[in-house]
This record gives sequence, structure tokens and C-alpha cells, in this order.
Amino acid sequence: MISRESLIKDLQKVRSQSPLVHNITNYVVMNNTANALLAIGASPVMAHAVDEVEDMVKIASSLVINIGTLSKPWVEAMIKAGKAANKKGIPVVLDPVGAGATAYRTQTSLQIIRECKPDVIRGNASEIMALADEKNITKGVDSVASSESALQIAKGLAKDTGAVIVVSGPVDYILDQQSIIQVGNGSPMMEKVTGLGCTATALIGAFIAVNENILLASAHAMAVMGIAGELAAKRSPGPGTMQMHFLDELYNLSDKDISNLFIEGHEQV
Amino acid sequence: MISRESLIKDLQKVRSQSPLVHNITNYVVMNNTANALLAIGASPVMAHAVDEVEDMVKIASSLVINIGTLSKPWVEAMIKAGKAANKKGIPVVLDPVGAGATAYRTQTSLQIIRECKPDVIRGNASEIMALADEKNITKGVDSVASSESALQIAKGLAKDTGAVIVVSGPVDYILDQQSIIQVGNGSPMMEKVTGLGCTATALIGAFIAVNENILLASAHAMAVMGIAGELAAKRSPGPGTMQMHFLDELYNLSDKDISNLFIEGHEQV
Amino acid sequence: MISRESLIKDLQKVRSQSPLVHNITNYVVMNNTANALLAIGASPVMAHAVDEVEDMVKIASSLVINIGTLSKPWVEAMIKAGKAANKKGIPVVLDPVGAGATAYRTQTSLQIIRECKPDVIRGNASEIMALADEKNITKGVDSVASSESALQIAKGLAKDTGAVIVVSGPVDYILDQQSIIQVGNGSPMMEKVTGLGCTATALIGAFIAVNENILLASAHAMAVMGIAGELAAKRSPGPGTMQMHFLDELYNLSDKDISNLFIEGHEQV
Repeated sequence: MISRESLIKDLQKVRSQSPLVHNITNYVVMNNTANALLAIGASPVMAHAVDEVEDMVKIASSLVINIGTLSKPWVEAMIKAGKAANKKGIPVVLDPVGAGATAYRTQTSLQIIRECKPDVIRGNASEIMALADEKNITKGVDSVASSESALQIAKGLAKDTGAVIVVSGPVDYILDQQSIIQVGNGSPMMEKVTGLGCTATALIGAFIAVNENILLASAHAMAVMGIAGELAAKRSPGPGTMQMHFLDELYNLSDKDISNLFIEGHEQV
Repeated sequence: MISRESLIKDLQKVRSQSPLVHNITNYVVMNNTANALLAIGASPVMAHAVDEVEDMVKIASSLVINIGTLSKPWVEAMIKAGKAANKKGIPVVLDPVGAGATAYRTQTSLQIIRECKPDVIRGNASEIMALADEKNITKGVDSVASSESALQIAKGLAKDTGAVIVVSGPVDYILDQQSIIQVGNGSPMMEKVTGLGCTATALIGAFIAVNENILLASAHAMAVMGIAGELAAKRSPGPGTMQMHFLDELYNLSDKDISNLFIEGHEQV
Repeated sequence: MISRESLIKDLQKVRSQSPLVHNITNYVVMNNTANALLAIGASPVMAHAVDEVEDMVKIASSLVINIGTLSKPWVEAMIKAGKAANKKGIPVVLDPVGAGATAYRTQTSLQIIRECKPDVIRGNASEIMALADEKNITKGVDSVASSESALQIAKGLAKDTGAVIVVSGPVDYILDQQSIIQVGNGSPMMEKVTGLGCTATALIGAFIAVNENILLASAHAMAVMGIAGELAAKRSPGPGTMQMHFLDELYNLSDKDISNLFIEGHEQV
């Protein structure tokens, strides 16, 4: 059951264990992703060459696959790394950035799901819907569909894949075949900073590295995102300073800050 | 005719229409470019795979091509995307970063001009001059030639290509075969932040997506850059904080801020 | 002999000569690297295509090779650029990011050392040790070994390669076959900002471009890093704001700031 205590405990674990999170992610967010993982206490590594991804993932505690600026050689490396992670029992999280915007993104996401069996899939409503219904149209990489409308589809996707599905939005839904957790933290200004969705996915990578309860770990990551985002937004006149303050808040996140946790629900389904 | 009113009107359009701007740009600035487009109210997407650029550009309102960290597979995608944009009537802006520094950059810029018929070409004085005279030598990607000396060459380039030419500098020249607009806003500290030229090109992408008058739209983008840059510089002790304040200023840019618009001239030629 | 005066003199040279530093570096840090070089007064260029690296390095004052997100086509370009730099007598600095973490990184670092004869090799203790002993295991790209334990290995590496070796850590060791300089400036928060090691390597590129005494120039670069890092940490509640303040401090670094230089030793060996 998610609670302030469970979140505090996992955050402490991330900070004390400093898990190595192997990221194969997009060019836009690499710097932010690495900084967010450092700020929360994890140890990031970025490596995408087919010549080394298997070696790198073997020493990692989790693997983050993000298709934001995908191309053939990167997809090849993602799948190679994902398979090696599966073999070693290292948890995998997938961010299907822009699924639905182009057939290539949708097909690649589905291929990665098939071949790398991700433990978590995190996207906005449009992206999650695109994974179930290829005809659904995304406007670029930003979300147009509502989280609520994606919920039924997400449940189906959880059933089909066995993965925890995270649908990001004003309220985040974190669900598997048994339960749904709703986290209500966050700030509208977060949508004006590029790549905070990708950061959420990377933080899921950090939390699933320290807690085998993937549903709970994923919810903890989303909660940390939302709480830090709220605190940062209060101090930021715009999205530029927001980006920096967000990292400061992740770094300084205290038990007192975590008392802002806003769980809207945790129910069995 | 450019005026505070025309700028306010186009800025409102960018914010209300939130045009999808497809960027094929360089690794250095991708994050800043995406953040600047979000801050001004547009919707950025980065996609460079030959497998998807045609699909992506079809759903976009404009295409930004920036050769800052070019290589063969990227150039192939740029040209594929540019041709698809031409076919669909989607406006294209080219940033020939470092043209003149190496033959490869100059030749690639000229190839893109030939094959993708950009509606706007924006560069510093050295880059613009290199497109007309390959023997002109650029020192890296920063400008050494003066905007003024590039002006005659820019006029020739406008005539040869039919494109609006933007020559960035302390005074920005925005010109086509009939008119020249001079915008005098900006701050010397902007040269100490990497990629603000690339940001200018991306903002041109946002403004040409909402106004078919390409000359005026390009001037509006340069004015927004300069005004936000001036405001940010006032609040920033150095280029690090400048980068963040610049995004904040773009995000918060008000009609009152726009009263700082400094048009040095708008004349027929 | 390193001193406040020697540092002030070289910093003035960087600012007045604004050397063009050609970087073939990793995706994570490109933006920071370019901004740090601009802030210190140098002129950065990023170019990695095999079609242009030889042309670009010829107009550069130094070459920075950083393998942080290496892959085959990039390594090919690094070696091509390195050989061209050797031929023209342009100094080369290598950052073997993550050497020891995977065989690919270790082998590639050794290949670059063999084929490009770098004038400086800068890494953390684990990376430097991996270059001498391939069996040494690195945890990702962050340092686990202590600088002190790497010192003996670094001396051997200096002898084998003829390069200046820089071992970064709480105390930085800058050494060649004759001397060791120890710089004690810096702040623990610097480890929470991604890519500051890469920034150090890039600043070495700027300083070796203006001073043929490679040992002294490298020490100057490390000192500037440490002093700016200390000043920035004082103003920063966390690593997000730290990143921006660090650039501001580089930009504003004064003779008075340099009086903070903390040289722990400069001895013959």
C-alpha cells in the first residue's frame, strides 16, 4: 500500500544504494535525465552502442529505454540491451515517446514490448492509447488525449503485457492487473519544460532498482516527480528557472516535503 | 508593415494555435530549442530518422532544418523531410550552422537550399556570406564578419533563392527581394550562451507557422528573441542564469514588454 | 611553476585569444561543454562527421576527444581528427569516460591513445586505472577508486604515453614524467552535476591552446574548475542552480576570485 512512509523508505534506499541506471534515451533530455538521477541519489549511465549495451546493462540495476529520438541503430541497441536485461532479471522501463505520431514510433514501441518485456511502460494518455490502437492519432509528442480516457486502454495493456502501466497527466495513474494507484501531485508548469515525462521514466528506473514491488516503486517515482514539481513551480517565474529548481528540489527532498504526497486512490480492480 | 501591434498579434496566434514545429537540429541545442518553443507557446517535436521524417513533417505546421552537428544519415533525413514539406506546402527554415567553416557544411547547406527550397535562411554574417562565396572563411560557428558586410550578399541570396534571408547580429536584418526590416533589440550577453542563434531559427519556425507573410513572421521571431534577450540579460549576472531567464522571459512576454520593440527600419529596396 | 599569477596570465590569454576548441564529445554534455567554453572566453565548435573532422581540426587551436556516448562512426571520426591534429601539431586531450565499465570503452580509449597520441588524458581514478589495468572494474562512469590509489598507475601511464595525466577527485593530480601538481579546489556538489568532468576536459582544451607548457596549462584548467565550482556551490541550494551559477562564475572569474587558488603541492618526482 502506498503511503508517505513507503515513499520515504524507498527514497532512502535510492540515496543509500545509489543504483546504476542504464539509460538508452533521447538526445533532447539526456542531460536532464542524468542530472535528475544524480539529484535523486542514483547513478546514471548513458550508453547506446551495440558494441557495449549488453556489457553495460549487466552491471546496471535497471534499464531505461526511451524512443524519443529513435533511429535504426539505436532501436537495435535498445532491443539488444532489453533482451540482456531480461536474461539477467534486471528490470526494464519503456517510454514510448510520440507513439501514435508516426507509424515508426508505434511499431517500434510494440516491437520493444514484444521483444524486451518491459516491467513498466510510462507514457501520456495519447501514447498509451496508441499502443493499443494504432489508428489513434497523436499530435507530436505532447498529450492530447485525457488520462481518464486512456485508463480503460491501459488496463487492457497491463493485461496483455503483464507490465505496470503509468499514464501521466494532471493525475497520474499507475496500474497493473490487480490495482490502480492515483497520484495527484504536480504543477501545470511541468508541461512547459521539455522532457519531464522522460525524467519521470528515468526516476521509475531508479525506484524499481531498489524495490521489487514494481507497482509501488513506479508510484513512488511519480509521487517524487509531482512533489518536486509542485515545490519547484512555487519558486519559479517560468519554465527556465523551473528546470533548475526542479533538480534542486529532487536533491533536497525531505520527509517534510513528502508530507505533501497527494494520493487520490489506491484500489483493487 | 512590422509594428508592436503586428508582433503582439502573431505572438497571440502562436500561443493560441500552438503550432507543431518539426525540428531536425543539432545535438548541442536540442534541449534549449524544445524549451524555447514550449516557452513561446508552440509544440516542438524532434525527429530525424529517415524512417519517419516524412510522416512527422506531414502533421507539422513548419519544418526547422539546422545542420549544426550534421552527418550523412542526418543530411539524408533533412532532405527527405524538406522535400515532403515542399510537397505539402509546409514552410521550411534553414540554419546553415558553420557554413564556411568546412567545405562539407557549405556544400550541404547549398544542397539543402537547392533540394528543399527553404522559405527562410537564417545565419550570422559569416554563414550567409559563405553561401554566396565558398572561399569566405568562417572561424568555427561564431560570426566574424559584420552583418553590414553580409547585407549585399544576403540581397543576392534572396534573389537567387526566393527565400527570406535573416542575418543575425547586433542589428538583425530580415530581407526579401522587396524589403528590409532591421531589428535592433538584443544583448551582447546572448553571444555567450550557446545556441541562441539556433533558438532564433526555431522561433522563426513557430512564427511562419501562423503567418503566411514570411518576411513579417521572421522579423517577429527575431524581435521576440531580442526583447526577451534584453530582459533576461538585465536579470542575469552571467550566461548560465541568462539561459534560464531567457526562457522565463519568452514564457512571460507581455504586451508591455513588446513596447521595447526597436525597429531600426523597414524599407522597400 | 603554478601560481596565482601564472593562472591569471593564462586566463587572460584564453579570453583575449578566444581559441577555437574542436570538440568530439558526448551527447549528454555537449550543451554544457559549449557553454563552459564560451563562458571562459574560448570559441567552441562541435563536429563529428568523418566528412569534415579533418577540415575542422585544421582551423582549431586544440582538439577535445570524449568517448562518453561512443559508437563506431564517432570513434572513426575521433581517430581521424586525432591523427590530423597530430600531423598539424594541434594539441589533443582525451577523456576516457567510463573506461573500465565496458571492454568497448577501455579498448577504444587505448586505441585512441595509441593512434592519436593525446597530449593530456583526464579521468577520474577508476578510469585512469582502467587504462593501465583492464581488469579493474568501474561502476558506470562515476568514480569509485580513490585518486590516491590511482596515482602510481597514473605515473606509469605518463611514462608509457608521454602525456600529461590528470586524475580528478577531491584533490586533482596533474602530472607528467617529471612533476606532480596537486590542486585542492572544488566542492562535493560538483559530483551531483552531470558532466563537470567533461567540462574540465574541455577547459583543458582551452588552456593548452594558449600555453605550450601542457602540464601547467592543464593545472590551470583544473584550478579554474575548482575555484568556479566552490564559488558556485556557495550560491546554490542544489545541483540544478549550481549548473547555472557555475557558468556565471566562469564568466565572471576575477583576479580576486583566483586568490582562492589552493595548490597543495608542485613537486619534482
